[in-house]
Amino acid sequence: MATIRIFVTGGTFDKDYNELNGTLVFKDTHLLEMLRLGRSRVDVLIQTLMMIDSLEMTAADRAWIVDACGRAAEARILVTHGTDTMVDTAAALAAGSIAGKTIVLTGAMIPYAFGSSDGLFNLGSALSFVQVLPAGVYIAMNGRCFPWDAVSKDREAGIFQEVKHHVAGGSSDPPGRRV
Amino acid sequence: MATIRIFVTGGTFDKDYNELNGTLVFKDTHLLEMLRLGRSRVDVLIQTLMMIDSLEMTAADRAWIVDACGRAAEARILVTHGTDTMVDTAAALAAGSIAGKTIVLTGAMIPYAFGSSDGLFNLGSALSFVQVLPAGVYIAMNGRCFPWDAVSKDREAGIFQEVKHHVAGGSSDPPGRRV
Amino acid sequence: MATIRIFVTGGTFDKDYNELNGTLVFKDTHLLEMLRLGRSRVDVLIQTLMMIDSLEMTAADRAWIVDACGRAAEARILVTHGTDTMVDTAAALAAGSIAGKTIVLTGAMIPYAFGSSDGLFNLGSALSFVQVLPAGVYIAMNGRCFPWDAVSKDREAGIFQEVKHHVAGGSSDPPGRRV
Amino acid sequence: MATIRIFVTGGTFDKDYNELNGTLVFKDTHLLEMLRLGRSRVDVLIQTLMMIDSLEMTAADRAWIVDACGRAAEARILVTHGTDTMVDTAAALAAGSIAGKTIVLTGAMIPYAFGSSDGLFNLGSALSFVQVLPAGVYIAMNGRCFPWDAVSKDREAGIFQEVKHHVAGGSSDPPGRRV
Repeated sequence: MATIRIFVTGGTFDKDYNELNGTLVFKDTHLLEMLRLGRSRVDVLIQTLMMIDSLEMTAADRAWIVDACGRAAEARILVTHGTDTMVDTAAALAAGSIAGKTIVLTGAMIPYAFGSSDGLFNLGSALSFVQVLPAGVYIAMNGRCFPWDAVSKDREAGIFQEVKHHVAGGSSDPPGRRV
Repeated sequence: MATIRIFVTGGTFDKDYNELNGTLVFKDTHLLEMLRLGRSRVDVLIQTLMMIDSLEMTAADRAWIVDACGRAAEARILVTHGTDTMVDTAAALAAGSIAGKTIVLTGAMIPYAFGSSDGLFNLGSALSFVQVLPAGVYIAMNGRCFPWDAVSKDREAGIFQEVKHHVAGGSSDPPGRRV
Repeated sequence: MATIRIFVTGGTFDKDYNELNGTLVFKDTHLLEMLRLGRSRVDVLIQTLMMIDSLEMTAADRAWIVDACGRAAEARILVTHGTDTMVDTAAALAAGSIAGKTIVLTGAMIPYAFGSSDGLFNLGSALSFVQVLPAGVYIAMNGRCFPWDAVSKDREAGIFQEVKHHVAGGSSDPPGRRV
Repeated sequence: MATIRIFVTGGTFDKDYNELNGTLVFKDTHLLEMLRLGRSRVDVLIQTLMMIDSLEMTAADRAWIVDACGRAAEARILVTHGTDTMVDTAAALAAGSIAGKTIVLTGAMIPYAFGSSDGLFNLGSALSFVQVLPAGVYIAMNGRCFPWDAVSKDREAGIFQEVKHHVAGGSSDPPGRRV
């Protein structure tokens, strides 16, 4: 079993509650604790790239993530990420000419530290998809896995869903081409 | 996305605590609640076949599970199961001449109802593997997925691990052949 | 056993996480759910007066709480409250000429909805103190119960502690006076 | 604030789940962890006398508890105990000629380790009652506190309730006598 590289970037997944001032903050990642709870025996290497809300993620931050994925020795990479701009980072990764790697992004709607989180389910899901999917960039949320260019977040419903690509033009479009 | 059939058979996954007499019992399955917590959007059909400790599972119970998997209209099936004899049921399923179906068994070491369970992680994992693996019978535990004939439960450690198949005969065995 | 009146005013106790925008919000009180979890058999009447962060509580809000406590038919009253200005509301209650009632304020450092909350412990504590203490206004936090004028919140440490009252003047202070 | 002595005797309160064989077992007490979760600032001394199911408690075990309470330097004592025979131990303590001490027994219907436990609520409650009640032996459960001779456990309902003492004889009973 090849090692899976896990890059932590923050997001709701890892938010904590600061009881002294009642705000949501980032402390350390909960990844190791979650893998322990799941009794995971998957060989992983965890590295924290940043600890930020994905709404605050800049182009430079994304470039850094792309660079880290490109440089990683592992061919299978899991990225934990805030859900709000997860699709943007996935697009940046897809544009990043990282050949031959399977990269899966996942996150959570509820912080892991808050008890009733979807984080553990999502982590189990993403860690599984990343082991078996062919090279490409994917988003694993809601128990499903979407190619990076076939998914969007429905902010009203708080879920990820398949994008129905609208095809400009008429019947002369080549069949099978996803636009 | 094709519907996934989920067959519930009991196991630690679904054990509850009876506070009136302090024993562990089965009530209803927690599957739906767990899928809701995980914000799963996978199309599933849940059916409870039995609610038993897998140590009490008889050959007749296994035959029933094999039969149910064979009759199911769905090509992708998830079976929740006690961990102690999960490998035996996987073997029965593999022997059951169920052609062309992907069947993944999973379970938990700690009851979901007890807070610090591995169940949600395992469910996320198994539900993901079952969506993408080719036809065959598998066990998804500890974040990994094993072919039914390449796994055993280490009861001392409480984990599932790859079986190193011993090859009868000598050095003339072809390299790379798993027997 | 006489009925205990519980007035809910909000505070960290009842904060929830809004997964659609990642903020902390008030929805419904968790009091009933907490009493059910604690298998409470205390006869209570729960009434929500407001649902606010205690830092936003105005003099008018406090007057309303004092008025509600004064009008309540019950002689024993529990008030759930944000911890930041709990001492101020206790002082307002003490100044409110509410004769013959035992009023206990309590709250939490961590929202009940977030799993690892002190809320259930504090509720068990406050509900017990209010049943047995003589008339007066008290704050029940950290497993202790303080008279309203002998307590302050240490914001650095996130705990409530006894106030050592400094008495102006010298050795002629009457004995029995708390110094 | 005087120190409270806490004697741990086991009971559901402290039961754990042994994931290797699926049974309920005693490991270490969760008292310290619970007090930390409740942010308790009560000065306590915790001592484990035994770690057993109260159905297995013998007369010798009870004598040991009575002896420990008698010898303790503290005047206020909390005893964690299985609920099934909590009333019997309370009676033994009351018969034990321990003068001038406030002794409160408490327990839980659901193990603390199982997430949805009443244990934290009960601990907050018992720890509060023991600080303020006059000398005597009490049982604190369900948010209430009962004198040792006025309570019984309703095993069907899983709750503690006041005992209506039946008085032999007729209408000539002296007024004020609890009937």
